Amino acid sequence: MMIQDVTHDECRHLLTQLHLGRIGAAKDNQPYVLPFYFSYDDGYLYSFSTVGQHIEWMRANPKVCVETDEIVGLEEWVSIVIFGHYQELVDTPELKMERDKAYRLLQKKKLWWEPGYTKTMIKGIARPMIPVYFRVRIMQLSGRHTAPDHETVAPTVSPIDQPSNPSIRDILAALRARLYKP
Amino acid sequence: MMIQDVTHDECRHLLTQLHLGRIGAAKDNQPYVLPFYFSYDDGYLYSFSTVGQHIEWMRANPKVCVETDEIVGLEEWVSIVIFGHYQELVDTPELKMERDKAYRLLQKKKLWWEPGYTKTMIKGIARPMIPVYFRVRIMQLSGRHTAPDHETVAPTVSPIDQPSNPSIRDILAALRARLYKP
Repeated sequence: MMIQDVTHDECRHLLTQLHLGRIGAAKDNQPYVLPFYFSYDDGYLYSFSTVGQHIEWMRANPKVCVETDEIVGLEEWVSIVIFGHYQELVDTPELKMERDKAYRLLQKKKLWWEPGYTKTMIKGIARPMIPVYFRVRIMQLSGRHTAPDHETVAPTVSPIDQPSNPSIRDILAALRARLYKP
Repeated sequence: MMIQDVTHDECRHLLTQLHLGRIGAAKDNQPYVLPFYFSYDDGYLYSFSTVGQHIEWMRANPKVCVETDEIVGLEEWVSIVIFGHYQELVDTPELKMERDKAYRLLQKKKLWWEPGYTKTMIKGIARPMIPVYFRVRIMQLSGRHTAPDHETVAPTVSPIDQPSNPSIRDILAALRARLYKP
């Protein structure tokens, strides 16, 4: 097995296919990681959450890290890491377009639910769900993937030329083929 | 849908079933998240990596956050968040027992591979793989899970009383049943 870089173009293509990630915030150098759903569009990850400690940390310190991946096993995975900036899409006229875009993207991918229907019980007490739309501006992007060590795979089309909605497995196969062209 | 707390006992039980997580480090309040495999034992997560920027960050600042989960979809998930301390199990007589334990636990769960067989290509240059064993001491543990909003499920046995190796789905069902006892 080998671990190889994924190019920026390939990372961006993978980001259109992946929707579940983990987002890290930090306060006093203590990281705090939570799962989240996102939809990638033109240099930004759009997402939705409800107010809580994690959102408060990102409001106080917008430096975040997003990791998203497809992990089949120890020897077959692709992982993308993003260093980015948190931007809250507050309900103001200035941010209406971006907020509408977030709503549209998340609805389209069914990555959203009506927060009014969701209650959080903390130590038995219901907490109100305040919806928060935000986006992460991608400042730095990198990716790694596993590849067979001694194998050469027949080259196929690159992921970017593939027809609509190739599976992650297809993308990985294409990545490998490209990297292992004889 | 409702979001509910998972008790500490249930978190610890889930940690014996889950092995894939994401670990966040921080430097100058910039978080950095990577996927990792772990094996839980008695208040610690044991793991293995190779030297890289992430390990260097954790060496400089041992405050870490581990998130592990089972996510079926937006409305069906359980997630555990750990604030902990990174401790490297260096190859010294003092840490031999802990290092052997890490090796044993990771081997048992097949969460380990021979680093000599793995090369990392960074910008086309092979980087040596230096194995690093480490553990995360759990300082703070919390968990959340989704549960149906208006449903009451017949109570079943608690996860702790279940026979060996219940699936995550069984554990979730038992959690829900316990929380929704009429």
